[in-house]
Amino acid sequence: MEVDFKEIEVIGFDADDTLWVNETYFREAEEEFAKLLSQFETPNKIDQELFKLELKNLPIYGYGVKGFVLSMVEMALELSNNTVSNDTISSILNIGKDMINKPVELLDGVEGVLEELSKKYKLIVATKGDLLDQERKLEKSGLLKYFHHIEVLSEKQEANYKKLLDHLEIKPKAFLMVGNSLKSDILPLVNLGSKAIHVPFHTTWAHEKVADSDVKNKEYLTLKRIDELLKYLN
Amino acid sequence: MEVDFKEIEVIGFDADDTLWVNETYFREAEEEFAKLLSQFETPNKIDQELFKLELKNLPIYGYGVKGFVLSMVEMALELSNNTVSNDTISSILNIGKDMINKPVELLDGVEGVLEELSKKYKLIVATKGDLLDQERKLEKSGLLKYFHHIEVLSEKQEANYKKLLDHLEIKPKAFLMVGNSLKSDILPLVNLGSKAIHVPFHTTWAHEKVADSDVKNKEYLTLKRIDELLKYLN
Repeated sequence: MEVDFKEIEVIGFDADDTLWVNETYFREAEEEFAKLLSQFETPNKIDQELFKLELKNLPIYGYGVKGFVLSMVEMALELSNNTVSNDTISSILNIGKDMINKPVELLDGVEGVLEELSKKYKLIVATKGDLLDQERKLEKSGLLKYFHHIEVLSEKQEANYKKLLDHLEIKPKAFLMVGNSLKSDILPLVNLGSKAIHVPFHTTWAHEKVADSDVKNKEYLTLKRIDELLKYLN
Repeated sequence: MEVDFKEIEVIGFDADDTLWVNETYFREAEEEFAKLLSQFETPNKIDQELFKLELKNLPIYGYGVKGFVLSMVEMALELSNNTVSNDTISSILNIGKDMINKPVELLDGVEGVLEELSKKYKLIVATKGDLLDQERKLEKSGLLKYFHHIEVLSEKQEANYKKLLDHLEIKPKAFLMVGNSLKSDILPLVNLGSKAIHVPFHTTWAHEKVADSDVKNKEYLTLKRIDELLKYLN
């Protein structure tokens, strides 16, 4: 596919699973959670029920580790019919603390790409999730120096991006967004008239998945690795 | 005291306990929590221990209801020597959900003051806490229309304000901050060379309290009610 990036002045990057590993830690936490509750249900059922509860709680808790942990505690009470041990509750709290304290593991090629692109473009981060979590990860990542602006959004829908571009006085056609989620990083931008490059991560949270019909006729580029960006933007 | 507001162009407002009631809900939650655990400890001891644990967890959980609830669950396990009932854990989760779902109760005079000041000044919100919680409260408050910009900060220290003013291209001496916390809303701004007006709320979280020596020789105005702002800024 031919996509033209001549008008691009500002490049936005998603953070979780675009710059660094994230979803993997949630998958590991879910496995640990299923093990803790294995006397009550099968791992598969636990997974499904936890996902349902997370979605139900999303409007009140939002994205991020803290809401995830609160949902795991609630799920443990429910799945065990209020017979789960205090030790298990305590282990669930510790899963959360461990997640928050994890080191930031950059994805291959990220630092080199940012260094290169920052010479020619204004770079920003547009990420969803918990404000403190995301700021802490950026700090730990050592990548802050490449970015002109950091925006943590409570949602990544078209209206959120529109507000961000307006606020930063960026014309939609001068903006390119790079991210791993079709739903959150690609489609809203294509709809706004910006460019978008999809760099899939090997794991996608079910809530971020989109139907094939949603991406039909949408113009965006998909790359295997983030450092392939340099082929198109140099 | 004579404070001169002639150079002010932009006014920043804290949100919790400046525009609307917040701390009261935390106090009520703590009372409910102490009742739930009354078989294990006195209310006074529970209060003290919970506060200590909140401070210990602050670097990982940050401000806001979710971290508060996680600390209450952890405290319940600890204070009961891991004998607390699942019903009590469930009640703690519900305290948190109720807090998040509370209606927003504006403080006296807020709406009139914002309406009046927005005619002459650019108004912004600078609030600390959970991103989603704060956005939701602003939405519910009906006050969004008065504000030019909303900033949710993970901390309210001098460096955070400096970054915000730089980003919005506001000169420190053209900025006035209004809030209920000396530590978070007043002192950092006075140190930056901005103006500040303190409107105390009847309850202050212990973590927000400052020593008398910290405010000595600092120039700021204290008002009893937010609508007294109009006497100085009209």
